[in-house]
Amino acid sequence: MAMKRAATSAIRAFSSSSPSSSVNSGSSTRLLHASAESKKIVGVFYKANEYASLNPNFVGSLEGALGIRDWLESQGHQYIVTDDKEGLDSELEKHIPDLHVLITTPFHPAYVTAERIKRAKNLQLLLTAGIGSDHIDLKAAAAAGLTVAEVTGSNVVSVAEDELMRILILVRNFLPGYHQVINGEWNVAAIAYRAYDLEGKTVGTVGAGRIGKLLLQRLKPFNCNLLYHDRLKMDPELEKQTGAKFEEDLDSLLSKCDVVVINTPLTEKTRGMFDKERIAKMKKGVLIVNNARGAIMDTQAVVDACSSGQIGGYSGDVWNPQPAPKDHPWRYMPNHAMTPHISGTTIDGQLRYAAGVKDMLDRYFKGEEFPPQNYIVKEGKLASQYL
Amino acid sequence: MAMKRAATSAIRAFSSSSPSSSVNSGSSTRLLHASAESKKIVGVFYKANEYASLNPNFVGSLEGALGIRDWLESQGHQYIVTDDKEGLDSELEKHIPDLHVLITTPFHPAYVTAERIKRAKNLQLLLTAGIGSDHIDLKAAAAAGLTVAEVTGSNVVSVAEDELMRILILVRNFLPGYHQVINGEWNVAAIAYRAYDLEGKTVGTVGAGRIGKLLLQRLKPFNCNLLYHDRLKMDPELEKQTGAKFEEDLDSLLSKCDVVVINTPLTEKTRGMFDKERIAKMKKGVLIVNNARGAIMDTQAVVDACSSGQIGGYSGDVWNPQPAPKDHPWRYMPNHAMTPHISGTTIDGQLRYAAGVKDMLDRYFKGEEFPPQNYIVKEGKLASQYL
Repeated sequence: MAMKRAATSAIRAFSSSSPSSSVNSGSSTRLLHASAESKKIVGVFYKANEYASLNPNFVGSLEGALGIRDWLESQGHQYIVTDDKEGLDSELEKHIPDLHVLITTPFHPAYVTAERIKRAKNLQLLLTAGIGSDHIDLKAAAAAGLTVAEVTGSNVVSVAEDELMRILILVRNFLPGYHQVINGEWNVAAIAYRAYDLEGKTVGTVGAGRIGKLLLQRLKPFNCNLLYHDRLKMDPELEKQTGAKFEEDLDSLLSKCDVVVINTPLTEKTRGMFDKERIAKMKKGVLIVNNARGAIMDTQAVVDACSSGQIGGYSGDVWNPQPAPKDHPWRYMPNHAMTPHISGTTIDGQLRYAAGVKDMLDRYFKGEEFPPQNYIVKEGKLASQYL
Repeated sequence: MAMKRAATSAIRAFSSSSPSSSVNSGSSTRLLHASAESKKIVGVFYKANEYASLNPNFVGSLEGALGIRDWLESQGHQYIVTDDKEGLDSELEKHIPDLHVLITTPFHPAYVTAERIKRAKNLQLLLTAGIGSDHIDLKAAAAAGLTVAEVTGSNVVSVAEDELMRILILVRNFLPGYHQVINGEWNVAAIAYRAYDLEGKTVGTVGAGRIGKLLLQRLKPFNCNLLYHDRLKMDPELEKQTGAKFEEDLDSLLSKCDVVVINTPLTEKTRGMFDKERIAKMKKGVLIVNNARGAIMDTQAVVDACSSGQIGGYSGDVWNPQPAPKDHPWRYMPNHAMTPHISGTTIDGQLRYAAGVKDMLDRYFKGEEFPPQNYIVKEGKLASQYL
């Protein structure tokens, strides 16, 4: 069955129902194709409640629904949105058996397990509104012949900016001062004894993909020593532009850095990569920023290292799982500057990923290819960063 | 009396006790001069208490005392440090009648009033460890013939970095997310509806001196529209490098900016400059960063505008007065990201301004000139930024 669906999916999503040579043919053909088949599309987004009406551009919320409802329905498609995503009694689960397209986000992730994929007999396309599809069992999706795609690039600027903010918050020891203000206190010394300039410090990114590169560009005028670790060396031009030095060996980078930023996807190789042993290889008092994925860290190892002072500060917006339960230990560890998963879902980011999802749906209805960089699973194969 | 002191001070501080032509003469003469006159030097710093021992470089604290005690005492000078600065019963007040040099900081400012200057009959030199000497009555200091000098440049990087952090904290709506984490909540929508990227926004600095320029350089890779207002246009090379556009008219700049950063000293002209009327000329929801001086703002006008939404967020580390009392309304206004006065007193900044104070004391003992940019009051005249 999986193979049959694979074939169908490949035909529908990539080759169009007409021959592939007609991909760029007139729009009347494409519209005919789109209107010919009504699709059931389900989107899982976080609920905005009273915040929904406060910003007309709040398209990333359940209520905003990516701003594509009228467009989808005018073409005869069914569009269901929910934030109720967990367990067999959830609203999402009701639609699993007959949905064609599932849109999810990393901010309020619907975990698309192998079991769900098995039950989703009509499913063809999994779209991530944003970046990072690790909430989907990608191997199962590939085996079932599904297409998985993200809006690559849609929120890389948003995340890189947020990382630089978190670096500064930790290096400059912002939060103790803020706490003093709201608690009616004033004690400059209690902040200053561990407040530093970023200038002159060694900052390394583990992963120098799109986000890592944007971060390095933004760090450039701060006059730091910049290092990066990745599978590949960067383009020499960009390396020159940012002044960042390649570290082939991860542990060598970690031993040098005052600040480490994690910019690698969550894969089987990176899951739990920062465990007790690896954290012990870092400089005493290292500051860590992780807007990548929570599960890249060993949760308890981070707590222990923050408590012992091995980690001097930890900031990020990603947790394992999400939403983080009330008793998640990262809420209570010392010297953290955590938020819910927010960096990629700024209003600007939302507008970009909503446009990207609409574009891919449009191409899907028309049987056109997606922008190549958007594919995470295509024709049974995983994108290189997930291998 | 003031005039007599003016003459004496000018001779001692600038011309040395030997003729001015000998300023650059051999060090034996200078050492002779230094050891010949024992000076009473008083420093007012914030107390570190239990934090003093936590960082050997914590030289900006009372306990650290700029790291110059041994050096001063070995030359026969008396060095007294205190954090008790207010009122006639304070420790500082006891030493006012016979001190020769008073070292103060903007972080725990000893207010040097005209009355104190009148009582300080031996006072010759007022040194600010850091930047910003508005806690000194500069006109009274000038009339009394005193020299006032700062460590110009010592913490400009520290402050510029901190401003960029605060811009990002406000634009990206960091604090509501942090509060959710520590309160056991998870509500992405409540953050996201007013979280933005910095990219593409219009950011203006009111004042483009040393700090403003460093801020513009750091903002450059964020792809904002950068504006600045100052008495003078910047060097064309720097204008080109940062891409910042000059706005001769302040109100014109204010009407365009999503983010306004205040980088002007506190002078008679800038005191209360951001009052109700001026804030009303800004864009609805404007974000304001002020690490310059609290008294540049009308305190209540800021509170009212934060409450009405005219100001969308306000962040800074400067207050009027300092320390801010427990009931200062900026502690309680909505959408603030305030801290005590900290940005210029990072450990890196402390090491630089401690070195700068030591250098000026050394020159003072030797009868040498200070670096010209350090003078705030010299020979009865105020530096141009305070006119």
